[in-house]
Amino acid sequence: MSLTIGLDVGGTKVAAGVVDDRGRIVEKLRRSTPAADPEHTAQVIGTVVTELCHRHPVEAVGLGAAGFVNESRTAVMFAPNLAWRDEPLKKRVEDLVGLPVVVENDANAIAWAEVRFGAARGHDYVVLLAVGTGIGGGIVLGGSLYRGRWGMGGEPGHYRVVPDGRLCGCGNRGCLEQYASGSALVAEAREFARRRPEGAIRLLQLGGGNPDGIGGPQVTQAALEGDPGALRCFQIVGGWLGQGMADLAAILDPGCFVIGGGVSEAGELLLAPARVAFEKALTGRGHRSFADVRVAELGSDAGLVGAADLARLR
Amino acid sequence: MSLTIGLDVGGTKVAAGVVDDRGRIVEKLRRSTPAADPEHTAQVIGTVVTELCHRHPVEAVGLGAAGFVNESRTAVMFAPNLAWRDEPLKKRVEDLVGLPVVVENDANAIAWAEVRFGAARGHDYVVLLAVGTGIGGGIVLGGSLYRGRWGMGGEPGHYRVVPDGRLCGCGNRGCLEQYASGSALVAEAREFARRRPEGAIRLLQLGGGNPDGIGGPQVTQAALEGDPGALRCFQIVGGWLGQGMADLAAILDPGCFVIGGGVSEAGELLLAPARVAFEKALTGRGHRSFADVRVAELGSDAGLVGAADLARLR
Repeated sequence: MSLTIGLDVGGTKVAAGVVDDRGRIVEKLRRSTPAADPEHTAQVIGTVVTELCHRHPVEAVGLGAAGFVNESRTAVMFAPNLAWRDEPLKKRVEDLVGLPVVVENDANAIAWAEVRFGAARGHDYVVLLAVGTGIGGGIVLGGSLYRGRWGMGGEPGHYRVVPDGRLCGCGNRGCLEQYASGSALVAEAREFARRRPEGAIRLLQLGGGNPDGIGGPQVTQAALEGDPGALRCFQIVGGWLGQGMADLAAILDPGCFVIGGGVSEAGELLLAPARVAFEKALTGRGHRSFADVRVAELGSDAGLVGAADLARLR
Repeated sequence: MSLTIGLDVGGTKVAAGVVDDRGRIVEKLRRSTPAADPEHTAQVIGTVVTELCHRHPVEAVGLGAAGFVNESRTAVMFAPNLAWRDEPLKKRVEDLVGLPVVVENDANAIAWAEVRFGAARGHDYVVLLAVGTGIGGGIVLGGSLYRGRWGMGGEPGHYRVVPDGRLCGCGNRGCLEQYASGSALVAEAREFARRRPEGAIRLLQLGGGNPDGIGGPQVTQAALEGDPGALRCFQIVGGWLGQGMADLAAILDPGCFVIGGGVSEAGELLLAPARVAFEKALTGRGHRSFADVRVAELGSDAGLVGAADLARLR
């Protein structure tokens, strides 16, 4: 049995797992990391990997990181929502742990995990959209993870959907992730509660009486209870997500979209309006097939499972 | 020497060429076809191919058609700008000529020709944008023509760049091709001449005194002469084209964009503003490479050369 370690490296935490070749997690650890300090993050990764290696015969390490990773999979070049710039993560971690290390974009790792072991098993042309704080993307084409010429492909959160639109963490305006992400969902709900508090009684109650107390879980809970204001927020954000899928289908024509990330835990609350918008906006509809639209199956472990599998296949 | 026939099948004409395995055209014919009559178009194709076969030992036929072609490359399922719907072009033509026939999207054929024999030689990750009446797209990834799960990929002319934007021939609103095509260029120039005739003296002169007399060649000529109004039209349309390239780079990260189609004959008039807009809009710029932006080299023969080569490699 071949074991590798996969890590999901975010801005404030690291999740690490020892994973077998069927995608099963043998052991898992989590550690906090200081945001905006990539060197310290590498040290935390080193400590966690060393600890896991004491208990398991591990052959390689895969790091899924929330940033644009170069084509040699050695460095995070740019992270729209983190302080990392041209960060040589592979070398830093290899020096600490003495094992082969592969760096991968976190959403690429999630996409790979869902194709290998999750919602997109059996599909060869898959687009994963990880709907969380931002929108991560991962693309599998012809059964292989797609990276592009310089490793920067698969970032559909950062194509423009609105000219002169909302400011994005990447520095541009109007990026998809400003309209179809969890942040957009929360912003819609808070704005609604501020402007029409009489229609947002349940949302405000769940938010402790304060619009700024409303977060993703509160919007989801209110929507699950049938609250019209919360359902409207999912309609809006799901509508943008569906438009995004139609745009991507014009370019990539995938057989399957997988919607992952924290917001996908809302399931059909998000997927139903997304599917409606997708089928309404797809160019050439009526003369082509609609891609499957599925919710991710591997939850918050997908990133580390995918990173571990990519390290195995390095 | 291996010879195949490639055809560029448009709404009103068919261009056919006998092409060798180095992309050289041995003989070429053109015929008019009635628009909106796919059956008659197939007959014209049959006649032209039969005529060429009398003079050359041809092994296969490739058809490049302005529409969405299915994954088995047998039929045009949908053509935004033509009457074709679920048109079984391969069978119609095979029955007439008795040779293997491959049907391909016309811009896919152009992309393939430019990668094999033209501006993108040596590149493995290429996006071609054929800027004519509409915007055709062709994508080469890892050295292979990319088609998607059902053959409908590579249609970046039909992702949405403006919510509730201009009506498109595909039935949607706000598609890229309504902003970055030759039609958009002409519409800008005519609108300008109508609203500010005092700034459009040269454009109106070239158009015979009438805004509706202004076409693409007139805008290009005026711009080449330095006319500010015509140059502004290229700035606007080139700006949209550059934004489109930035959007596509977020998703595909190609190493090279090739700009083809009739409007690309304006060369740097179109490419210079497109390049500026692309480099300004690319997400993660400063931490990644810019793709080459090149003008197509094979001109109006690219479609038939590419279709012939794809028939050879069938």
